[in-house]
Amino acid sequence: MSPATPFGDWMKSVQAHVEEALGAFLPAAGSTPVKLHEAMRYTVLGGGKRVRPLLVFAAGALSGADTRALERAAAAVEMIHAYSLVHDDMPCMDDDDLRRGKPTVHVAYDEATALLVGDALQAQAFLVLADADSLPPARQVAMLRLLAHAAGSHGMCGGQAIDLDSVGLSLTLEQLEQMHQLKTGALLRASVVLGALAGGDLSAQQLAALDTYSNAIGLAFQVVDDVLDATADSATLGKTAGKDAAANKPTYVSILGLEPSRALAEKLRCDAHEALAPFGEKAGRLRELADLIVQRKA
Amino acid sequence: MSPATPFGDWMKSVQAHVEEALGAFLPAAGSTPVKLHEAMRYTVLGGGKRVRPLLVFAAGALSGADTRALERAAAAVEMIHAYSLVHDDMPCMDDDDLRRGKPTVHVAYDEATALLVGDALQAQAFLVLADADSLPPARQVAMLRLLAHAAGSHGMCGGQAIDLDSVGLSLTLEQLEQMHQLKTGALLRASVVLGALAGGDLSAQQLAALDTYSNAIGLAFQVVDDVLDATADSATLGKTAGKDAAANKPTYVSILGLEPSRALAEKLRCDAHEALAPFGEKAGRLRELADLIVQRKA
Repeated sequence: MSPATPFGDWMKSVQAHVEEALGAFLPAAGSTPVKLHEAMRYTVLGGGKRVRPLLVFAAGALSGADTRALERAAAAVEMIHAYSLVHDDMPCMDDDDLRRGKPTVHVAYDEATALLVGDALQAQAFLVLADADSLPPARQVAMLRLLAHAAGSHGMCGGQAIDLDSVGLSLTLEQLEQMHQLKTGALLRASVVLGALAGGDLSAQQLAALDTYSNAIGLAFQVVDDVLDATADSATLGKTAGKDAAANKPTYVSILGLEPSRALAEKLRCDAHEALAPFGEKAGRLRELADLIVQRKA
Repeated sequence: MSPATPFGDWMKSVQAHVEEALGAFLPAAGSTPVKLHEAMRYTVLGGGKRVRPLLVFAAGALSGADTRALERAAAAVEMIHAYSLVHDDMPCMDDDDLRRGKPTVHVAYDEATALLVGDALQAQAFLVLADADSLPPARQVAMLRLLAHAAGSHGMCGGQAIDLDSVGLSLTLEQLEQMHQLKTGALLRASVVLGALAGGDLSAQQLAALDTYSNAIGLAFQVVDDVLDATADSATLGKTAGKDAAANKPTYVSILGLEPSRALAEKLRCDAHEALAPFGEKAGRLRELADLIVQRKA
C-alpha cells in the first residue's frame, strides 16, 4: 500500500490483513481439541485495536520488509498480547468479566480453559515465528529470542509481577514507569523491532532510535490508558472502567493528576516523533501511530 | 562420560549437570522482580526425576551432540514441563498442594504468582533455546519449532484440554491413549528428538525409529503413573496418591485393571528396545531409560 494512502485506510487495511493472518495461523476451527481451539479463536479473532500488529507493519516500512514475514511477526506479538489479557482477566489476577466488549474467556468458557488458552497461545506465537520460512534462519532466531525476552520475566511477565506487588503501595513516578516499561512497553518495543528486523539487520544507531521511539509510545500508551480509565465509561472502553482506582492501583492520574498526565502524554508523543527523524519519510506510519496512541478515545 | 559408566552413575551425573545448567539459565536469584524470580527457581530447582533432560542427553549420544547444545535443550524441555506442573496444580485445574514433596507454587506463594511463574517459564524455555549459539541457526529454528509444537495445542496443552473434558466420561482405550500421547507423550518425544537433533540432522528413517521409541516410552510412562497412583502412597510419590481415582478420571488401571496394566507397560518396554535396534550400541542409554521408566517406584 502506497505511503500516500490516508492513515485511516492504511490502518483498516492492515487490521483486516492481520485478522486474516491470525485466522490462518491459529489452529483450525473444529480441529481436535475442539473446545480449546474454539476458545483460542474466540480470544484472538474479531476484536482489538491491533496496536502491536500496526507497529510491526509500520516498522516494516523502514526496512522494506516483505509482507509474509510481517504477517507472521504481527500474528506472533498479537498472540502473546492476547494470551496475557486472558490470564490477566482471570479471577486470581484482575478478575474482569468484560474485554473488547465480550465476556472474558474464563466467563465465556471456564477458568481451566482460560488457563490453557493462554498457555497454548504463547506456544502458538513462537510456532508462528519459527515457521516463518521466508526469513534467513539467523534473523529468525534473533526474532524468536527478542520475542521470548519481551514476553518473559524480564519483560511482560516481570511487569505483571511488579504490578501485582504494587497494589496498595504508593509508588514513585520512576517505579511506576519501570513497571509499565516491562508490562506494556516490552511487547510494544518488540513489535517495532520485529517489524524492522523482518526486512533486514539493524545498525546499533537504528536500534537505539527505535528504542527511544518505543519507550516514548510505550509510556504514552499507559498514561493514556490511565487517563481513559479515569474518564471514559465501560461501554466506550469495551472493558470495565475505573477498575484501577477501585483496586487501589497506582496510576499516572493518581500520582500526577489528570491534566499533568495529559500533558505528559503529549510530551511523549513529541519525543517519539523526534526519535524517528533519522528515518525520514519511511517512518511516516510510525509517526501516525504515535499520534493515534496519544489521541485515541478508547 | 564413557558408555561403560554404570547407568546409575550416568544418571546422577546428568541430573547434577542439568541442575547446574537450569540454575544458570534461570533468572538470577535476587534480580528484579525478586519474588517472581525466586518462585521460578523454587519451581524448577532442587527436585524432579529429570526424565526429559535424561532423554535429551541419552538421545544426544546417537548423534554425538555437544554438551553445550544438550544442556540448553534439556533445560528448555524441563522448563516447559515444570511450568505445566505449576499450572496443572492450580485450584482451577487439579487443585493439588503437594508436588515433588514440596508445597505447590500457588500454596508456597499465591495463585497469581503461580500463573505468572508458569507463563514466564514457558517464555524462558524458548529464550534458552534461542540463545543456543553453538548450533547452526537453521537447526536451532527446527528445534524451536519442534518445542513450540510439542508444548502447544497440538501437543501438551491439547492433551490437557482433552484430559479436562474427559473427567467423569468413560473413555475407550484408544481415546485414553490419544489423550496421553498429547499430554505427556508430545514433550517426551520432543526431548528425544531435540537431543538427537542437537548433534545433527536426522534421516526420515531415524526419525521414524525415534518416534516409535518415544510413543512406546510415552505410553509406558503414563501406564506406570496410573499403576503407581493406584498402588503407592503419597510419601513415596512426593505428590497426592489416589487422586485420579478420587477425581473419577479414566486411567489405564480403571479401564484395563492392575495386572493387565503392568503387562502392557512391560510390552511397551520391549517395543521401545526393538525400535532402537538400528542405532546399535549408541542407543544404550535410551534403552536403560526405557527400563527405568517402566521399573520406577515413584
